[in-house]
Amino acid sequence: MNIGIVGLGLIGGSLGIDLRSLGHQVLGVSRNSLTCQLAIERGVVDDASVNLTLLAAADVVFVCTPITAIAPTIQQLVPHLATDAIITDVGSVKAAVVEVVTPLWHNFVGGHPMAGTADSGIDAAQSQLFAGNPYVLTPLDTTPPAAVKIVEEIVRSLRSQVYFCRPEEHDRAVAWISHLPVMVSASLIEACMSESETSVLELAQNLASSGFRDTSRVGGGNPELGVMMARYNHKSLWRSLLSYRHCLDQLITEIEQENWHALEQRLQDTRKNRPSFLSEDVRD
Amino acid sequence: MNIGIVGLGLIGGSLGIDLRSLGHQVLGVSRNSLTCQLAIERGVVDDASVNLTLLAAADVVFVCTPITAIAPTIQQLVPHLATDAIITDVGSVKAAVVEVVTPLWHNFVGGHPMAGTADSGIDAAQSQLFAGNPYVLTPLDTTPPAAVKIVEEIVRSLRSQVYFCRPEEHDRAVAWISHLPVMVSASLIEACMSESETSVLELAQNLASSGFRDTSRVGGGNPELGVMMARYNHKSLWRSLLSYRHCLDQLITEIEQENWHALEQRLQDTRKNRPSFLSEDVRD
Repeated sequence: MNIGIVGLGLIGGSLGIDLRSLGHQVLGVSRNSLTCQLAIERGVVDDASVNLTLLAAADVVFVCTPITAIAPTIQQLVPHLATDAIITDVGSVKAAVVEVVTPLWHNFVGGHPMAGTADSGIDAAQSQLFAGNPYVLTPLDTTPPAAVKIVEEIVRSLRSQVYFCRPEEHDRAVAWISHLPVMVSASLIEACMSESETSVLELAQNLASSGFRDTSRVGGGNPELGVMMARYNHKSLWRSLLSYRHCLDQLITEIEQENWHALEQRLQDTRKNRPSFLSEDVRD
Repeated sequence: MNIGIVGLGLIGGSLGIDLRSLGHQVLGVSRNSLTCQLAIERGVVDDASVNLTLLAAADVVFVCTPITAIAPTIQQLVPHLATDAIITDVGSVKAAVVEVVTPLWHNFVGGHPMAGTADSGIDAAQSQLFAGNPYVLTPLDTTPPAAVKIVEEIVRSLRSQVYFCRPEEHDRAVAWISHLPVMVSASLIEACMSESETSVLELAQNLASSGFRDTSRVGGGNPELGVMMARYNHKSLWRSLLSYRHCLDQLITEIEQENWHALEQRLQDTRKNRPSFLSEDVRD
């Protein structure tokens, strides 16, 4: 199959490596000519160009740009595509993307591979990035089943765990387990920094250990990504934040009222429920 | 030196192993006779007993019981001690302990070794548990300097990083970096479980990955420990929780008002500030 990839960063580059090794012809497009050159040299793609016309021969195109560029890229891409070509994307938010892109191209299947590393760019591209990780597909009722089937087959060949759901379900789920943790964790760092006594702040900085490190990790991550989550998954994240604040308020009230029995019950529930969110490979 | 240890769990047992290897005579007391037997067999102590009278010969006694038992233990211990014996404790909250224990014994130095593992009990005892980790001592102005000096020397010989501060400063610092993260993290788990649509909850559980795992880790820990923090560090934890809620409310308002510039600035600050809380050995 001829597979096009627009955006040759961590995700696009890693897709290229795996898809080539599965025997596909991979055509890459990047707006950066040096990236195109590197992608060819490193065997990430068979051919690359800064020009979307390269993808006229593609059967399936993976759009792997930052989320803000997905719709504009597809708008520029469609005049060059064969009429039965399939487009899929890898954006981490789905409803906002699917809504805008669906009218642009009939054969579009929204997707989100839940894989990544702390690094980005083509230098971070690696084989087997998707193996064993979830890959969500969000077709609509109107999406041609043949297009869904082909994207599904490609994704399964990467050895991903495939999940199907509506775009809105995806966005609510990732709001809980991916976007809310960033905001909760960032607020922790900010609250600690609000300590007004220098001696106490310095002591806290010296004493902080693995508990603080882990709870604060995602809150100390890429600010642009955090804003992107909030912009494109606005409604779901906001709902999750309000639920979170409600839970926090209840806990604060229990501590204020010294209701230790209720607090212990609450912490027993959280200990009991946490493992349901941990797959075997991410267990502590 | 003759060193007594009351409570032969993770901390008390690990202290015994290191102090014996440094050439001290270590006398252990546990209310569990099997623990006493194991401690002798494994070389954790030189001698052990269920009876506090064993510690009549001790120059320094480390009280390593759960925090609720510290004051009652010391009350029972003092009739048996030599008049110049020194008592120190290892409780993770200091003001509440120091306040009650100081009137019971003149030579008392509050302490808190910031070391641990996920395991507990004598089976978890290990050598070098304290090496490279912070160990806070909280003497008062009225604490005899000679007693402070001896405890400090012992703690330094464990290769701990020693910090001195007032009990209240300790409690405020650990509220930020140890106790607040537990409550923040537990509320995250609880909020996720509040999702009312089963399909979305199940999807969230399937998609959760390292970000959720790390942010939720300390909130899924021992409920009794969580309640203990809240009970004994009530005031400082409550203050930290209110500051945290204030930061969270500001973030929620920014998202509500779609003030992306302010949100990005906030997340840039948290990324910038987080490393000041990470020592080299706990960097990601």
